[in-house]
Amino acid sequence: MGGENNRPLILVTNDDGYRARGISRLTEAAMKFGNVVVISAEEPMSGMSHAITTKTPLRPRLRKEEEGLSCYVLNGTPVDGVKLAFNSLLKRKPDLLLSGINHGSNASTSVVYSGTMAAAIEGAINNVPSVGFSLLDYSQDANFNLAGKVAEHIIEQMLKNGLPRRICLNVNIPAIPEPEFLGLRICRQADGYWQEEFDRRVDPHGREYYWLTGFFSNREPEAEDTDEWALKNNYASIVPVNVDFTNHALIRELKGWEKADISNEESKQV
Amino acid sequence: MGGENNRPLILVTNDDGYRARGISRLTEAAMKFGNVVVISAEEPMSGMSHAITTKTPLRPRLRKEEEGLSCYVLNGTPVDGVKLAFNSLLKRKPDLLLSGINHGSNASTSVVYSGTMAAAIEGAINNVPSVGFSLLDYSQDANFNLAGKVAEHIIEQMLKNGLPRRICLNVNIPAIPEPEFLGLRICRQADGYWQEEFDRRVDPHGREYYWLTGFFSNREPEAEDTDEWALKNNYASIVPVNVDFTNHALIRELKGWEKADISNEESKQV
Repeated sequence: MGGENNRPLILVTNDDGYRARGISRLTEAAMKFGNVVVISAEEPMSGMSHAITTKTPLRPRLRKEEEGLSCYVLNGTPVDGVKLAFNSLLKRKPDLLLSGINHGSNASTSVVYSGTMAAAIEGAINNVPSVGFSLLDYSQDANFNLAGKVAEHIIEQMLKNGLPRRICLNVNIPAIPEPEFLGLRICRQADGYWQEEFDRRVDPHGREYYWLTGFFSNREPEAEDTDEWALKNNYASIVPVNVDFTNHALIRELKGWEKADISNEESKQV
Repeated sequence: MGGENNRPLILVTNDDGYRARGISRLTEAAMKFGNVVVISAEEPMSGMSHAITTKTPLRPRLRKEEEGLSCYVLNGTPVDGVKLAFNSLLKRKPDLLLSGINHGSNASTSVVYSGTMAAAIEGAINNVPSVGFSLLDYSQDANFNLAGKVAEHIIEQMLKNGLPRRICLNVNIPAIPEPEFLGLRICRQADGYWQEEFDRRVDPHGREYYWLTGFFSNREPEAEDTDEWALKNNYASIVPVNVDFTNHALIRELKGWEKADISNEESKQV
């Protein structure tokens, strides 16, 4: 579990599985600042969002242990891993949770589907300063040099300044040559969506099936305060992400919907 | 796909699977107001959150078709079902998306793990007025009388007033006798978390495994404006839920983290 010194304890996880290059680079970055425990899935878990495993047993496996570094592999989702680490694998609550570096963007609405960001949100639910990192390159052999430097800078900031409770960070890094990189930019999540294009096929037995596929569509490409704009313009984007999903502004407006006597009404006959 | 009249088109889904009583009651409620298409999973999908299926093909199956009602069953997650319905099964964008009625609470932080609420959030991402319903009773034979009446009231409100873009509703209903019910209450999501208690066991082959289990813990039981308080005090709770996870207030505070010259720095040597 790392040396018993005063170095920060950092939990590292991802959703691409333990073989991914992104988590190797993030682990390397984390080890410069503290003792590190890594927990990642046996297999890639992209698109698992905040899913948890309750129907099958979880089997963590200690894959590697050396001075200041312990690596576990798990047959579960990213959120399973965070929960198991907090509850059973770590001797104490970590000072920082790092998730990623994801292969592919988690900007805009992709935050909702992302296992990488779900792990960070789970950290924030448990009052651990947490951040998810993603590089806009899906390829297995993506170049993580720039993303690694960004991660190191953010880790330093997080350890120095922390974060307010119930908020984590969604950091995305463009896949560009380093000389073109313009720096970090604090942003809001762009208003966008995935335009699905289900690929309909017929199997050899004559039964139809669909593959889920699609492309991202930005509803506000001109808005310069969004993560999508920043990434398109050679910045890394940092979005503060809420654990509290409430739209507080709407609470007052909806007050008119409050109603006392529903149970006395007859069921509707429309 | 229902009659070609002017009735609203309502998509109904859930995360407990097509056999659950909750979706039967919600379908019955929806049919009073419009033509209904139901898509639900073959098997229960609780705790799947916003997960999507990209590694296996999706096979929708038309299970039932009658005047004003079509029911599909799918081998996928709740969000898969919503995406497939919007993209391939429905002739047009529905006027309303209803998810549930879930067997068990989705109040407070449970919104994050919930497949029921993920379906509603997916609706809101696609600009369809959407609401998730949950009854605080996990049992298969739970009594959905009161929850059904609440659903009918909310459906009526939604069809009349709609909802602002990028916001859906999280409605939870207490499991209490109808005479004790005090009505609807607009709330914010309580600050709470699931306290995990991993149940560690050893299999017949001597290998250890864990079952994920736990209990919900409310960090602010005295706060009267939360969903948890409302439910404990015999109200149904309505929380407006954001698709935009950005903490806008923190953007300004974090501006000090912006930095231009990261790529020119050497990788940290701490």
